[in-house]
Amino acid sequence: MELFILTIDYAGTFVFAISGALAGMKQKFDVFGVFILGLTTAIGGGTLRDLLIGSTPVGWMQNTIYVYIVLGAVVFTYLFRNHFRKLRRSMFLFDTIGIALYTILGLKKALSFGLSPEICVMLGVVSATFGGVIRDVLSGTAPLIFRKEIYASACLAGGVLFLLTDQWLGEVAGMTVAIIAVFLIRFFAVRNQWSLSFQQGD
Amino acid sequence: MELFILTIDYAGTFVFAISGALAGMKQKFDVFGVFILGLTTAIGGGTLRDLLIGSTPVGWMQNTIYVYIVLGAVVFTYLFRNHFRKLRRSMFLFDTIGIALYTILGLKKALSFGLSPEICVMLGVVSATFGGVIRDVLSGTAPLIFRKEIYASACLAGGVLFLLTDQWLGEVAGMTVAIIAVFLIRFFAVRNQWSLSFQQGD
Amino acid sequence: MELFILTIDYAGTFVFAISGALAGMKQKFDVFGVFILGLTTAIGGGTLRDLLIGSTPVGWMQNTIYVYIVLGAVVFTYLFRNHFRKLRRSMFLFDTIGIALYTILGLKKALSFGLSPEICVMLGVVSATFGGVIRDVLSGTAPLIFRKEIYASACLAGGVLFLLTDQWLGEVAGMTVAIIAVFLIRFFAVRNQWSLSFQQGD
Repeated sequence: MELFILTIDYAGTFVFAISGALAGMKQKFDVFGVFILGLTTAIGGGTLRDLLIGSTPVGWMQNTIYVYIVLGAVVFTYLFRNHFRKLRRSMFLFDTIGIALYTILGLKKALSFGLSPEICVMLGVVSATFGGVIRDVLSGTAPLIFRKEIYASACLAGGVLFLLTDQWLGEVAGMTVAIIAVFLIRFFAVRNQWSLSFQQGD
Repeated sequence: MELFILTIDYAGTFVFAISGALAGMKQKFDVFGVFILGLTTAIGGGTLRDLLIGSTPVGWMQNTIYVYIVLGAVVFTYLFRNHFRKLRRSMFLFDTIGIALYTILGLKKALSFGLSPEICVMLGVVSATFGGVIRDVLSGTAPLIFRKEIYASACLAGGVLFLLTDQWLGEVAGMTVAIIAVFLIRFFAVRNQWSLSFQQGD
Repeated sequence: MELFILTIDYAGTFVFAISGALAGMKQKFDVFGVFILGLTTAIGGGTLRDLLIGSTPVGWMQNTIYVYIVLGAVVFTYLFRNHFRKLRRSMFLFDTIGIALYTILGLKKALSFGLSPEICVMLGVVSATFGGVIRDVLSGTAPLIFRKEIYASACLAGGVLFLLTDQWLGEVAGMTVAIIAVFLIRFFAVRNQWSLSFQQGD
């Protein structure tokens, strides 16, 4: 289980960093800017969660591997910058498993600080999604996830599901169920172009 | 007094959340985005203050009622989205009493951390106004309060007044005086279109 | 040495605040907005570093002189707003020595929290450069340092150099070498228009 979590965590960091690096290259940022955008996208959500609950120094600073994964992702993005259309499916896969996992890991960390379930679910969603918000603010665009097909909402559903099931099913099964749920919700949302818009018909 | 503070605090949260939700709807954000914008507007200022002084987990996480107030405000905003012109006066009232109160509560919290009066006044102003700054950054516009008629300046005046008077008048009277002062300054500023622009005549 | 550090620290704060105040005036912010932009530019980087490592209340709040330096810088900027072209050289000088010093001071503070060298160098760069990032986000433009000629990269080089040399040379000499290195890199980068763009030729 530990190994499974680590694998997803690292793969998720890599994919999130790629999405940040791509956004930075699109904005014609320089090497430093692209790296910072990759880094903030990858670790921004967890950083905000850690700041809000007061868990400092924030998580990624305690293990340099995250910085090296981001560095690797930036180099990878540069080398394969013309091939990302083909990689879209793999990226969608890791991104979706990544947000599912980050939701649950964030939620569990918040629970360990004695916060109420509602707040913990929110912190799970923050962990999974605010890296992307920071990426968009730093590249000067309104945050995509505030507009996009079901994304944060899938995390929310997964977080609630985990809270409801982990006491019956045990942690490992609860986590698996929640991750599969996030994946399925997001998969069908993207395929069927579901959205949660307030305005119908425009 | 406690009841009075709570009432204003909750009413202020509600009104701030409405202003965030309206901004989100204007940007055509989805349900999640509108909620996040309502939430950050309502609790962003106090959150930044708590982070800066190191009071974590930040305040609103310790009492779920704030999240439910924001949720209620988002639903309310959606239902009455075509009626806000009529509600403008009530909103102005609560918003202005809200920023006055948040200034004083923020200032008092900062004082309890042993910081100097100047810094505490600044933290009071941050508590009252930075929710709006975050709202504007997240919706992709330059912060309104950096341009607007007297707003933060009214908070600043109220905070200084509270510091100068609460030892003579007692806390309750000092607070009342400060809140009335913020209200009057802002009321006349809006009515007479006062501003603190550096550039005259453009 | 202490005196030297203090002088640079205060002069750097003054110059950073001027750059923020100028950005605010360009956006036609009001007095409050210009002050906040000056303040966040001057103290934003160190504030972010302190939040990330958990050193709260953040540094500038523990000594009101920073607020008064920023206030002075805003008044100075307003009075001499038409003369900044002539002051460009002095500003470049203090800005460059400032980022060099902030890199080293930030790095040393991070080291004292027991973080790994890579993370400490990053926190040094964050201390030196993120005030400018926050300035740009708050004035609604994509961060300049993500695009600009060698800037953060000079800080990075200086930070690494300091880590490599301070054990041989002693702290004072290591710091001097690092500051001179940042200065020279940035000086030649600006003169020769070096950049670290990913895209050649566009």
